[in-house]
Amino acid sequence: MQLARVTGTVVASRKEPRLEGLKFLLLSQLNTDNKETGTYIVAADAVGAGVGEVVMYASGSSARQTEFTHERPCDAVVMAIVDSWEVEGKEHFTNE
Amino acid sequence: MQLARVTGTVVASRKEPRLEGLKFLLLSQLNTDNKETGTYIVAADAVGAGVGEVVMYASGSSARQTEFTHERPCDAVVMAIVDSWEVEGKEHFTNE
Amino acid sequence: MQLARVTGTVVASRKEPRLEGLKFLLLSQLNTDNKETGTYIVAADAVGAGVGEVVMYASGSSARQTEFTHERPCDAVVMAIVDSWEVEGKEHFTNE
Amino acid sequence: MQLARVTGTVVASRKEPRLEGLKFLLLSQLNTDNKETGTYIVAADAVGAGVGEVVMYASGSSARQTEFTHERPCDAVVMAIVDSWEVEGKEHFTNE
Amino acid sequence: MQLARVTGTVVASRKEPRLEGLKFLLLSQLNTDNKETGTYIVAADAVGAGVGEVVMYASGSSARQTEFTHERPCDAVVMAIVDSWEVEGKEHFTNE
Repeated sequence: MQLARVTGTVVASRKEPRLEGLKFLLLSQLNTDNKETGTYIVAADAVGAGVGEVVMYASGSSARQTEFTHERPCDAVVMAIVDSWEVEGKEHFTNE
Repeated sequence: MQLARVTGTVVASRKEPRLEGLKFLLLSQLNTDNKETGTYIVAADAVGAGVGEVVMYASGSSARQTEFTHERPCDAVVMAIVDSWEVEGKEHFTNE
Repeated sequence: MQLARVTGTVVASRKEPRLEGLKFLLLSQLNTDNKETGTYIVAADAVGAGVGEVVMYASGSSARQTEFTHERPCDAVVMAIVDSWEVEGKEHFTNE
Repeated sequence: MQLARVTGTVVASRKEPRLEGLKFLLLSQLNTDNKETGTYIVAADAVGAGVGEVVMYASGSSARQTEFTHERPCDAVVMAIVDSWEVEGKEHFTNE
Repeated sequence: MQLARVTGTVVASRKEPRLEGLKFLLLSQLNTDNKETGTYIVAADAVGAGVGEVVMYASGSSARQTEFTHERPCDAVVMAIVDSWEVEGKEHFTNE
């Protein structure tokens, strides 16, 4: 998984029928110092994440292992909203 | 998923029989500022996208989760035509 | 999928039994201007491609979706021989 | 698989229900000289690894082939704690 | 698939139970001129390859399509020992 910040949303009305109802989030990847790396990805939302929140996403076939994305043509999913992380015993991010 | 613009098509008459009927699109990847990154990919078309349109594509096994690509040797699929996207509350692309 | 030119072959007599009978091709990846990018890949042949031909290959689990590669430890397959492609309405490659 | 050092942990209380109980580790990838490459990944823990330990992780669908990660939206798993490795007959790492 | 030279081995006694009995090889990726690229990977051994041998490995879910790796958390497998390869009709490697 990778860490990312939700920076926006993508709207697509003409799409594969199985995608109906999915929300697409624009994510900006983060490094472990909570800095954006310049890499983005579009991921389906499985946890109700909002713009500005720090999240984890899973890629590949693992992105289809949620109730929302099962058997859908979706290769990335936000599967958790991050509370905090620590590196070498020091907190590098907290959402409090 | 990644954002891309459809820039062309690929024709292949000698191919794996299961690919019969699939349309192959040449895609040029876009960043979130709607600029081409220089990376291309060939994807099967699942939504009737035309040259010039901005689309989303899925890669890997997820590319086989459409009616058109099911159980076919295809690792990328255009699964949506993009209407618009927003970054930090500002519209970065719209097809209107 | 990616575009590539077949540049050679790989011979391996000691191998996983399920690979018996597969032909391994050395591919040199092409960009959309039909220039080699310097990246190579070894792919199984599902279409009878020969050295010099321009082809498309699929990677990952999709590479196992052919009669030749089904349930084999093979992560790339040549699934089409390319006739031509167009970029912005201009032919960038034709095999005629 | 890749070699990595466990450098921290990620806490996420709002997540896909199937992830309940999984521990998320921050990994810093190692090269074969036991130096950090600057690349990180978040992986689920399947072996009880602690911060500071040197491990191996698997990515993609293979990350779901453990008792802990089966059918979960998880794309990386720590599946072994490394005792040692050798390059050209010379020990490059040992945890003793 | 990619070409690689076996440069060493990794020992891990604490691991996911399903990995019991697998041998982990350190591989150094080769380009088509038989030069090491500087990229390494750890792969399970399905063919009895030894240090110094030139091999092919498969990645991702395809790495689980051998008797040794079936349903195991393993994302790369050595599935062939290479005899030789040719580029543009010229032999670039032979193990004789």
